[in-house]
Amino acid sequence: MGVASNNDKKIQMRLSCPMPKLDFDVITLGHGSGGLLTHRLLNSGVFDLLKNDWLDEHHDGAMLKLEGQTAFTSDSFVVSPIFFPGGNIGELAVNGTVNDLAMCGAIPQFLSLSFIIEEGLPMQEFWDILVAIKFACEQAGVQVVTGDTKVVERGKGDKIFINTTGIGRLHPRANIHTSRIKAGDKIIVSGELATHGMAIMSVREGLEFETTIESDTRNVNHIVQALLDEFGPAIHLLRDPTRGGVATVLAEIAQDTQLGVELSQQHIPVDEQVGSACEILGLDPLYVANEGIFIAIVEGEVAEEVVEKMRLMAHCEQACVIGEVVEGHPGQVVLISGIGGKRVVSMLVGEQLPRIC
Amino acid sequence: MGVASNNDKKIQMRLSCPMPKLDFDVITLGHGSGGLLTHRLLNSGVFDLLKNDWLDEHHDGAMLKLEGQTAFTSDSFVVSPIFFPGGNIGELAVNGTVNDLAMCGAIPQFLSLSFIIEEGLPMQEFWDILVAIKFACEQAGVQVVTGDTKVVERGKGDKIFINTTGIGRLHPRANIHTSRIKAGDKIIVSGELATHGMAIMSVREGLEFETTIESDTRNVNHIVQALLDEFGPAIHLLRDPTRGGVATVLAEIAQDTQLGVELSQQHIPVDEQVGSACEILGLDPLYVANEGIFIAIVEGEVAEEVVEKMRLMAHCEQACVIGEVVEGHPGQVVLISGIGGKRVVSMLVGEQLPRIC
Repeated sequence: MGVASNNDKKIQMRLSCPMPKLDFDVITLGHGSGGLLTHRLLNSGVFDLLKNDWLDEHHDGAMLKLEGQTAFTSDSFVVSPIFFPGGNIGELAVNGTVNDLAMCGAIPQFLSLSFIIEEGLPMQEFWDILVAIKFACEQAGVQVVTGDTKVVERGKGDKIFINTTGIGRLHPRANIHTSRIKAGDKIIVSGELATHGMAIMSVREGLEFETTIESDTRNVNHIVQALLDEFGPAIHLLRDPTRGGVATVLAEIAQDTQLGVELSQQHIPVDEQVGSACEILGLDPLYVANEGIFIAIVEGEVAEEVVEKMRLMAHCEQACVIGEVVEGHPGQVVLISGIGGKRVVSMLVGEQLPRIC
Repeated sequence: MGVASNNDKKIQMRLSCPMPKLDFDVITLGHGSGGLLTHRLLNSGVFDLLKNDWLDEHHDGAMLKLEGQTAFTSDSFVVSPIFFPGGNIGELAVNGTVNDLAMCGAIPQFLSLSFIIEEGLPMQEFWDILVAIKFACEQAGVQVVTGDTKVVERGKGDKIFINTTGIGRLHPRANIHTSRIKAGDKIIVSGELATHGMAIMSVREGLEFETTIESDTRNVNHIVQALLDEFGPAIHLLRDPTRGGVATVLAEIAQDTQLGVELSQQHIPVDEQVGSACEILGLDPLYVANEGIFIAIVEGEVAEEVVEKMRLMAHCEQACVIGEVVEGHPGQVVLISGIGGKRVVSMLVGEQLPRIC
């Protein structure tokens, strides 16, 4: 299965990138000084690991040759714990920004990578995060071309925060915009909901299941590119339902377009174990953060064809239409249960799962 | 004087941008949820304050039309305290990235802006930071086109950290590269050293002087652009000596080029009060972080002309040649005292002044 082979590839990469022998075990304030210790840290193998022509310049900025419409997006990652089943903050930071670019209809190209490290972070943990970053960059086909490293005193941060900011070139067939959504459009989800959020929560709450719930963090840009290649402007909007979940994303869209959204509860795909974890913790999967899935709002006529195409791709085997855009109840998302009951779904209120990404 | 009028302009902007009436006084975890409270926070006036066509889209990424060679640079700002004489973390975050773009020989255009806020930050402080960001963007002529807001629990951050990542187009006459440096080049500094670092340290150490030492944080991109307009490729390298100070930047350059650098101690401009503060704290101004100045390494023949031109510009009245690039002592920076004594200047070792930017 796709997921297993991905894990195998990760393990391969970890084995092929052992941490070099260093004369320090933990990150100290001096490593963020911009002076000799910063140089030593970066030259200890960090630059080598992420090696490319731009990083080799060792300049504060990278010079890029860009053409035409360019997508630009930024996210800071503060997930806790920084290591979780299925991944760590490093790959999450790459995948998150890569996927945001893909959601703009862009082909991800370049990333900046900025660390805020809490003094005392074990160098081995930093190294493992860097290897995960390298893995995720290779999977997505992007390069880290510039960055920054700051260190704050113990108790003034939380192990490590990562900002990634990304640049990508617009796919020539993309025409993604909220204004293109119209009644009759279908809402497709690329895979099962709530997996990332429940992987994090299960660790935090100490929940135990037969098998561990693993985060689905991954890049979706190649999938999106294949869909844009084939369906182009029939794809009206792409969104990754991270914080606030599918409910919040769809509520935003309903509000922005002043159209209605109808969701069919029985079609919303949730892994059985993830569903159980949600029940135990009293959480609605519609509001839980996702990382490895996306929502596509597409022309009604092509929806089934898009879904068929997606189901042939790794990590999209559970893709399906979960609802449609309607003229009725403008500005509102309505969930229709298996027996026809209706309830209004609004944006996430308060904070259900802090620091999920 | 330039500085005073700058302060007047800042005060004007603060008066013209009062915080709107809100139903909350402090930032809570919910404001980082990506849900309703995040929307309320951003729509409370944040989007209006930084208003432009890209932010109005309220999308995760911005679509930009870029042409040709583009500079891309990222920095996270963790300065403590977040409010200091002469500025706050907001304008520092804008000016820092704007200046990094300028140091690439680029004309700054677009910024991303990502916040990591510690729960409990007073909304008024966040607002004041945003107004400073607006001010700095207007001064530099850049626009914030995308961003992100995360909130971490009390004790897991330190009030606020800001990442800015910038995009700029290469100045048509710029040809900035370490490889262009050669013996005979002159080293110019655009103004007095160590002002920003000592403004921060004076607050932290409770030092009192007749007048407060104020940070010189400001954008230098218009100055750099004017120099590139006139002197173009005669400017071989530009660097802003932030963390690690002038000493670390020049030591890096000497190491990278394997040329020597000779500095004339008597020509290094330091404000009298800043010099006293350094003496009291046992700090060498050459290692103290700067924000509002830059180093230009230029063709020997045009150096005096460059300095003359700079001295006519606001904030560059103290510009001068502080040294030159030589064939001798390759890879080393040598400081020559008023009476001809010589000492080797190396990179900053350890951390002299944590969290200065």
